[in-house]
Amino acid sequence: MTEFTKEVMHVGEMASGAALTVPVYRFKGRAGAPSVYIQANMHGAEVQGNAVIFQLLELLRDLKVNGDITLVPYANPVGCNHKNGEYTLGRFDPITGVNWNRMYHFDESIIKPFVQQCIGKDNATIERDFKALMLETINQKLDHNIYGLTTGQRIAYQLQQLAHQADFVLDLHTGPISSKHLYCPEYAQESAQYFDIPHTLLIPNVFDGALDEATFCPWWKLQQAFAELGIEFSIDANGINKESFTVELGSQEQIDLDVALTDAKSILCYLQHKGVIDSTEFVPQEMTRYGCYLKDYKAYYSPMGGMVDYLAEFGQPLAAGQPLARILRMDNYGDGDPLHYLSLDQDVIPILHFASASVNQGTELYKVFAKYFIL
Amino acid sequence: MTEFTKEVMHVGEMASGAALTVPVYRFKGRAGAPSVYIQANMHGAEVQGNAVIFQLLELLRDLKVNGDITLVPYANPVGCNHKNGEYTLGRFDPITGVNWNRMYHFDESIIKPFVQQCIGKDNATIERDFKALMLETINQKLDHNIYGLTTGQRIAYQLQQLAHQADFVLDLHTGPISSKHLYCPEYAQESAQYFDIPHTLLIPNVFDGALDEATFCPWWKLQQAFAELGIEFSIDANGINKESFTVELGSQEQIDLDVALTDAKSILCYLQHKGVIDSTEFVPQEMTRYGCYLKDYKAYYSPMGGMVDYLAEFGQPLAAGQPLARILRMDNYGDGDPLHYLSLDQDVIPILHFASASVNQGTELYKVFAKYFIL
Amino acid sequence: MTEFTKEVMHVGEMASGAALTVPVYRFKGRAGAPSVYIQANMHGAEVQGNAVIFQLLELLRDLKVNGDITLVPYANPVGCNHKNGEYTLGRFDPITGVNWNRMYHFDESIIKPFVQQCIGKDNATIERDFKALMLETINQKLDHNIYGLTTGQRIAYQLQQLAHQADFVLDLHTGPISSKHLYCPEYAQESAQYFDIPHTLLIPNVFDGALDEATFCPWWKLQQAFAELGIEFSIDANGINKESFTVELGSQEQIDLDVALTDAKSILCYLQHKGVIDSTEFVPQEMTRYGCYLKDYKAYYSPMGGMVDYLAEFGQPLAAGQPLARILRMDNYGDGDPLHYLSLDQDVIPILHFASASVNQGTELYKVFAKYFIL
Amino acid sequence: MTEFTKEVMHVGEMASGAALTVPVYRFKGRAGAPSVYIQANMHGAEVQGNAVIFQLLELLRDLKVNGDITLVPYANPVGCNHKNGEYTLGRFDPITGVNWNRMYHFDESIIKPFVQQCIGKDNATIERDFKALMLETINQKLDHNIYGLTTGQRIAYQLQQLAHQADFVLDLHTGPISSKHLYCPEYAQESAQYFDIPHTLLIPNVFDGALDEATFCPWWKLQQAFAELGIEFSIDANGINKESFTVELGSQEQIDLDVALTDAKSILCYLQHKGVIDSTEFVPQEMTRYGCYLKDYKAYYSPMGGMVDYLAEFGQPLAAGQPLARILRMDNYGDGDPLHYLSLDQDVIPILHFASASVNQGTELYKVFAKYFIL
Repeated sequence: MTEFTKEVMHVGEMASGAALTVPVYRFKGRAGAPSVYIQANMHGAEVQGNAVIFQLLELLRDLKVNGDITLVPYANPVGCNHKNGEYTLGRFDPITGVNWNRMYHFDESIIKPFVQQCIGKDNATIERDFKALMLETINQKLDHNIYGLTTGQRIAYQLQQLAHQADFVLDLHTGPISSKHLYCPEYAQESAQYFDIPHTLLIPNVFDGALDEATFCPWWKLQQAFAELGIEFSIDANGINKESFTVELGSQEQIDLDVALTDAKSILCYLQHKGVIDSTEFVPQEMTRYGCYLKDYKAYYSPMGGMVDYLAEFGQPLAAGQPLARILRMDNYGDGDPLHYLSLDQDVIPILHFASASVNQGTELYKVFAKYFIL
Repeated sequence: MTEFTKEVMHVGEMASGAALTVPVYRFKGRAGAPSVYIQANMHGAEVQGNAVIFQLLELLRDLKVNGDITLVPYANPVGCNHKNGEYTLGRFDPITGVNWNRMYHFDESIIKPFVQQCIGKDNATIERDFKALMLETINQKLDHNIYGLTTGQRIAYQLQQLAHQADFVLDLHTGPISSKHLYCPEYAQESAQYFDIPHTLLIPNVFDGALDEATFCPWWKLQQAFAELGIEFSIDANGINKESFTVELGSQEQIDLDVALTDAKSILCYLQHKGVIDSTEFVPQEMTRYGCYLKDYKAYYSPMGGMVDYLAEFGQPLAAGQPLARILRMDNYGDGDPLHYLSLDQDVIPILHFASASVNQGTELYKVFAKYFIL
Repeated sequence: MTEFTKEVMHVGEMASGAALTVPVYRFKGRAGAPSVYIQANMHGAEVQGNAVIFQLLELLRDLKVNGDITLVPYANPVGCNHKNGEYTLGRFDPITGVNWNRMYHFDESIIKPFVQQCIGKDNATIERDFKALMLETINQKLDHNIYGLTTGQRIAYQLQQLAHQADFVLDLHTGPISSKHLYCPEYAQESAQYFDIPHTLLIPNVFDGALDEATFCPWWKLQQAFAELGIEFSIDANGINKESFTVELGSQEQIDLDVALTDAKSILCYLQHKGVIDSTEFVPQEMTRYGCYLKDYKAYYSPMGGMVDYLAEFGQPLAAGQPLARILRMDNYGDGDPLHYLSLDQDVIPILHFASASVNQGTELYKVFAKYFIL
Repeated sequence: MTEFTKEVMHVGEMASGAALTVPVYRFKGRAGAPSVYIQANMHGAEVQGNAVIFQLLELLRDLKVNGDITLVPYANPVGCNHKNGEYTLGRFDPITGVNWNRMYHFDESIIKPFVQQCIGKDNATIERDFKALMLETINQKLDHNIYGLTTGQRIAYQLQQLAHQADFVLDLHTGPISSKHLYCPEYAQESAQYFDIPHTLLIPNVFDGALDEATFCPWWKLQQAFAELGIEFSIDANGINKESFTVELGSQEQIDLDVALTDAKSILCYLQHKGVIDSTEFVPQEMTRYGCYLKDYKAYYSPMGGMVDYLAEFGQPLAAGQPLARILRMDNYGDGDPLHYLSLDQDVIPILHFASASVNQGTELYKVFAKYFIL
């Protein structure tokens, strides 16, 4: 049985003075072997990733591990415990409104000076030094500040310290009511086929504060900076391989341990492909995999307030003019039109919809692949 | 086509000064024919009743109506609009914590003096006078008070004015994540078979502030007070027939217009039986109907905090020892027991469970029929 | 320097699995000497009591203690950490709406059988046995239940275990925006003069779930049950002295350590009078002390929605017709009356008002002594 | 008496179908005279601006008006009615977390093509055409969109339509618990002396979504674009004068009509200076006015969780090392340090602090002028 260790990381403090902690599980691999960092539940209601980490731990104990594997469930104890009424609200800091997954750090200005220092060095040295630079930058943010850190920065930077030590990063999320989908950097498109996830969003080299971006953008920017100097420094599967993904596991507010087992095996399939685990048993499912560029991933906002009967099936192309939903507005019964059918003028693939049937005008009703293609 | 009227009832005012209104739909029947009052969405997240009222309106327009039918969707605009984050929170007044469905009025002390005045009167007169007394009592509460009314009382009393004018009252609710079930006064058990609802709670003559109680308890207490004097004044199907029910339509935060049509037909089946509509077309479904006394309707509180994978199927007897749920507590992984199965020592029928997978110790996980019988 | 001990009591568990704990500080006195239990912050936003306990600890270390003194700040970690937006919301369980200070236990049916067993026993034995009975009852509630306890019951019962061991109980609260006032059982009216608090509510022998009631009602009922048998068993200052108070320290959401020092000395004045501490240095302030029976403590609900400029000064008699507040409703500007003055038809003493300027129709604006007298 | 008109603008729809409306008051001035747009309460808890608009309306009715004056209280009915518990939460969209005052529109890419078209035109024509372009741009955003608008965009764009028609724009806000302060574009620094506000933040030409920026940045960018071509197009007091300010009136959740009268007169002093009203009676107060660049306006985050006794006085320089606050952490009493004093290593002027005494680690405790100067 493969051994793992468990640590408790102190990430904050509540108003009562009680500590907020996060458990960190580690399987220790060989030095130099490809490593992975996996976290779950950065958004409070998105709990299913914890079940996937549970199943990964159960499976990994019977597998041979090549590289370091670090697993962090309940990554955000403030978000996890941000209940209001029956539901969990933890998508953003309740005081500031900032999304918990937009607080990671990357300062692009570190790239150019670093590249200048690297000319003539070999790729392994560059990789080692850049990793050290990223860690040093985060340590500075955590330890040296006059005016302090926000609640979310303190959590995010500590997680980022762990993530920067790995080659591959998986951030386990869910949508509100949602099908499974994958956020994948454009250069890593080939890897999408190792996940049993039929819908993939291809994202560009733009840092917007999320963990996946905070872990792949620096390497991608570095590769580009070298390329501008005519130096090849590849981060795709043919070089110093670095990838990160946001894995959307389905709907929030739900735990299903059986589905979690399926998803854990899908992740092991990816890890096997990358050589993080020493196994050949995991085989990706045959399925049609659809892709969509992030710019074509559209939110559709409700054109009116009302009560929504969501109709469109997730994951299947929906023809232009076919109904996404019908919306009931009883205030109009008898003297207006109480039932509207909502549709779009183009073919789309619906991926997720809002969590409640009751919406104000302007609520984000659906997110859809507006232009899609087969991967 | 049967005509209806629509009015807008002003029930409150928001901080911005905007009025809070409720639409009231009425089909006018013959004087003296049995009448019904139906409302929906007293609790903000319990929206499906609005869809049932929509389908009732659609169906009633093509039916012949005997008695007055009054329908009130969106009965509580404060609750309906009490959103927090993605979800609707409106089960209780957010300032006071008082359940919106515990603010109706009944003062038992009116019964005895009324009965004294009625000795020697015929039942029809008693019925008419008692109805008038109940309305007068509510009008007094609404209009004559030095220190004012709470937000919820003002809404509840105005709805109660409408309800007291009807013989039959249906208050459409839902559970959190729930199967359909019916709250039925013990004396009206026979009526439960006209609803296509397999589970019925039989409730005693105890007023706890809810609309069903506020509309049947006065008549039941009246019947009892007469009985103590040896006078028969029956409110069951053989006498001055008065009934009220809370109809639990399934889960909150959901609109399904197709299911709503089924439930509207089930309600019409009851109304046909009572003679409110002039129809023979509605036939109750054949099904095993289970009953349970309110005292045996048990809430099961989570013995620990954690992430819950709900396992028990609703509506089917669950044998003692069989799991209700399993609860994941990753904080214990590696140095404790991370996965607990929760079960009970007796056979139960699970009826509903909590809306979220993430629970604190002591959260109400399930409600179950602890002792049940076939109706 | 007087020694104290500190323990950590485990009262619950969050969804993440993290324990919820409460610190318990104890000064150990002589067996048989009068003892006190003091807690703070049962309602999340009512934090000032923690500062008073801090100052009590600081002062007590330099005093001589006769009887046991137990101090519990942050008594309700769920409530303390129930933040929403910038504010703390912890007045009631966010899932059920039940007030955290209405979950204590007292079952009056234990009194009569106990009294029957006590006939012929001396008062000291009765006191000892009744204390044991109350503790046993609470232990049963905590340990023996099939369907579990709610989050709030688990906390309340554990605190109640501590409170039942003391002769005197002080539960430190605050109002929303409020003057200082005291909830005092009618029989202990004489003790109100030892607190530097100008307004006292005299409360009857009715149990409604609060800690003060849960600790004085059992003794008061016991005294009454003996009295019905013609046996004198006095719980006032002349007998087996038992008292409990809810001390309202001012406004919520505020910490002021200087004011806390003043209030700590006021509490020590009461404890000195009761012989819990061995001191003569604390002298109550000269002030006019007003009393009011609980039935005359009136909530005034806003007759309209709007923006409130609170005008009435706390603690001073306000003549009939003088304005409590003026309420701005800009929606009426230009075509109605945008500014209303609110007043009452009788003289009152305003004690507290709502925390926000923005109110819906029916919000509790003020609480006032509607009939008052000089104590 | 000067006449005004009142309209009701429909800005949204709630889940119940009820319309969300905003009242718009207008005084009509001479064509070509300087005009002003004033709104209040974009953030739900920041209500005092409504009282200032009330007092402005009362005062303006007795004054002579030169240019158009448009006043909009309750500018954001979603925010105004976003209550949770006793408090108002409306700083951001509760579903998305986006600040309601970060949803205005400005697309800098319109500037260059416009400037190209303007070469050779006179300034009055340029002004007229640019105003028309800004309005046309907003109309396009409102009317032509496939996927719809968010709740907040629909509100913001409609308000922006009104604001773009005026020369001067005042957006009335408050801080949490705060002194009065003014956000002023750097080029309009001279105007700060006409407001009776002792602290002014000078803000650069960076658009971040707020109304003040959305109304001054376009003109400032336009001026800069002309300057790059060597053409003078001045928007300061010597040219086509355009200014906008965010006026912070003090603390949220409070209405004080007397203070509002003072602030209304201060605003009239500015409007008199700008020639919007025809008056000489309003004279700015003598006071030391401090300025600070936005980059030096620092948030200080709590280094620990706890209960805060805020000590620093607003508006006065606080020497390095002097305490801002002391923070109570009873969990440390007896075995640690329960009381910390918080201070900074440099002189600052505290401007505002957090609304609650109870803070998590990382909560924004204070905002301070870290480098300040006398204006």
